[in-house]
Amino acid sequence: MPLVVQKFGGTSLGDAERVRAVADHVARTRRQGNDVVVVVSAMGRTTDDLIRLAGDVSVVQPPRELDMLLTSGERVSMAVLCMALAELGVDAVSFTGSQAGIITDTTHTRAKILEVRGDRLREALGARRVPVVAGFQGVSTDHDVTTLGRGGSDTTAVALAAALGADLCEIYTDVTGVFSADPRIVPTARRLGRVSFEEMLDIAASGGRVLALRSVEFARNHHVPLHVRSSFTWEPGTWVVEEEPSMEQAVVTAVTHDTSEAKVTVVRVPDTPGLAARLFRALADANANVDMIVQNISVHGTTDISFTVPRVDLPASLQVCEDLAQEIGAGEVLADDAIAKVSLVGAGMRSHPGISATMFETLATHGINIEMISTSTIRITCVVRAERVEDAVQALHRAFELDV
Amino acid sequence: MPLVVQKFGGTSLGDAERVRAVADHVARTRRQGNDVVVVVSAMGRTTDDLIRLAGDVSVVQPPRELDMLLTSGERVSMAVLCMALAELGVDAVSFTGSQAGIITDTTHTRAKILEVRGDRLREALGARRVPVVAGFQGVSTDHDVTTLGRGGSDTTAVALAAALGADLCEIYTDVTGVFSADPRIVPTARRLGRVSFEEMLDIAASGGRVLALRSVEFARNHHVPLHVRSSFTWEPGTWVVEEEPSMEQAVVTAVTHDTSEAKVTVVRVPDTPGLAARLFRALADANANVDMIVQNISVHGTTDISFTVPRVDLPASLQVCEDLAQEIGAGEVLADDAIAKVSLVGAGMRSHPGISATMFETLATHGINIEMISTSTIRITCVVRAERVEDAVQALHRAFELDV
Repeated sequence: MPLVVQKFGGTSLGDAERVRAVADHVARTRRQGNDVVVVVSAMGRTTDDLIRLAGDVSVVQPPRELDMLLTSGERVSMAVLCMALAELGVDAVSFTGSQAGIITDTTHTRAKILEVRGDRLREALGARRVPVVAGFQGVSTDHDVTTLGRGGSDTTAVALAAALGADLCEIYTDVTGVFSADPRIVPTARRLGRVSFEEMLDIAASGGRVLALRSVEFARNHHVPLHVRSSFTWEPGTWVVEEEPSMEQAVVTAVTHDTSEAKVTVVRVPDTPGLAARLFRALADANANVDMIVQNISVHGTTDISFTVPRVDLPASLQVCEDLAQEIGAGEVLADDAIAKVSLVGAGMRSHPGISATMFETLATHGINIEMISTSTIRITCVVRAERVEDAVQALHRAFELDV
Repeated sequence: MPLVVQKFGGTSLGDAERVRAVADHVARTRRQGNDVVVVVSAMGRTTDDLIRLAGDVSVVQPPRELDMLLTSGERVSMAVLCMALAELGVDAVSFTGSQAGIITDTTHTRAKILEVRGDRLREALGARRVPVVAGFQGVSTDHDVTTLGRGGSDTTAVALAAALGADLCEIYTDVTGVFSADPRIVPTARRLGRVSFEEMLDIAASGGRVLALRSVEFARNHHVPLHVRSSFTWEPGTWVVEEEPSMEQAVVTAVTHDTSEAKVTVVRVPDTPGLAARLFRALADANANVDMIVQNISVHGTTDISFTVPRVDLPASLQVCEDLAQEIGAGEVLADDAIAKVSLVGAGMRSHPGISATMFETLATHGINIEMISTSTIRITCVVRAERVEDAVQALHRAFELDV
């Protein structure tokens, strides 16, 4: 019997009525002859409410306790979903991250999965029951409750699909799939029927918010086909699959953008081997999620190093840079949080030279200045002023003829 | 260093401000030279909200999932209390029932504690940290999450105090102690400075709602001194301790009442040995919490058996009785949910005959009819009409000169 992992996010479980709708869909999937494992996020705005409560109580929030607090949300959603399934005659049983055997490292608030044991889930499936698993959470090798950080529930779903050898992992969300650009900015954006893991990785990494990067990485590494679709319309969405040699490829698949990052520049870094390594090791140790890195050529024995980080990591990153700059005799450290990234993603780029030239020309024509550039084989990213990013997305979507 | 277990109920943790007040008190207790273990309930009305949500989602509520749902509440309160303690510079660490080593049987929604391992708590105390433990919950021998039922957090606190060899278990609540009668009914009721375990058992069993019966039993069996006090005024409350031979005893300590029960009568039960045993075994198997039992003398080879149960157990109890009545050829089964119990409790009764006569006379003088009577060495309970119970409490409180 095929095994499907179905993941439902917070908006999909927004209230009692939505929980019942999800239960209906799980029951239907089962009637159609599948075994199902369900992964749930916390209901609606629960997580935000808990964060607000913590803020009301205390400024000091030890990460271990923050994890304990936030993992209460999935307990609620999985328990009530099991009840709704029971009412439909489906024998469902809830499992916390710990009970599901999701073993993580000890990094609270952004733990990494080390191992998925999954014995209790296999046992439940063997007894024809539907396991409903708390997303986003695990148990550390120290037996403490951990959370997986942003996009954690998607990661839980993919990790379980891989561990259980599922045929498919369905990610239910409040949009109908992955689009050629953000439909709020480009109303003519198309829903993509099928993208490769590589494209999806670059879409996620460059600002497409439908799937978290790490869950796509996990899916690619473990060959888990993903289907991103809506829990409101239940219509087919976007398949994320292995790239097939026969797959006809558009040159450019999507235009993505990201306004959540900030730029840091360390000026006049002495051009001594190993200094960049020390800087980025120190940033990694501070858990700053460095994204783009640009180092200009050396002039007069010094160089400027720029990089982007999520805006939440900016204070920690500045601290690291300022400490190191003093130590190594570099110049000042500049921060800029009014930037945005705009990217083109497409597996077809590999065999089509000149895409970057067209991209830069298009931006220039619209008077949009490019501040940083970074390219991979299937992606080109430019950093621009945040206030011009919507214009940039619209211009590029038109220039590459991605409209419906 | 003395070890104190402090338990805080839902109203004590009603909002962010209350959480900070509790943290202040814990920190102060610590500064005064004590080791502290804290046990918490869910904040304010959380549990009621969760029960309402479950009702909105589904009529069918498997007990295992109900336990999973309800145990989310303590995770929230213990995490935010740890944050508030951290802000005061107190190194606190939260533990779920499972992490605290509270091992229970597999009876969901009313599990019994089989064992308290407590290794992690001892380790935390050894490191001079304050363990904050989720009350009301444990983990079953099947590794499922369980709850301890009504008064479960008190039971957690007492069980931990016993397991850790604590010097004292403080139960913080929204009243200032145990009273000679419910102050809402008898405004002149006195706060009792000190009661014996035996009196407290009978007070709890006969309707005193301050402490749950099982937590008092547990405290008595493990010789854990209890101090019931207010988290709003922080003033000393009522001590529940071993009875000392020198303790001067009032004849009657308190008048209690209980309006949460219903009465069931099985009419014309054949007077055959073993029938009563079968009836009460069947009721126990249905988890009905039978309280008072009265069997009249046999007339014409049959007898009437009456008993009281919590009103919530009435439907299940009636089913059991009707099935058995048919099987054994008894008469009809009568239910009455408009009753109340009124009781006198006092260790001094043992050596003072005539208390019951005074009680019955007092009720008769006030025109209150007695429907059932049950006595123990330190308690007398009468079942009366529910509508007359407040009159009964007031009359008895006056008759036995319990007023301030």
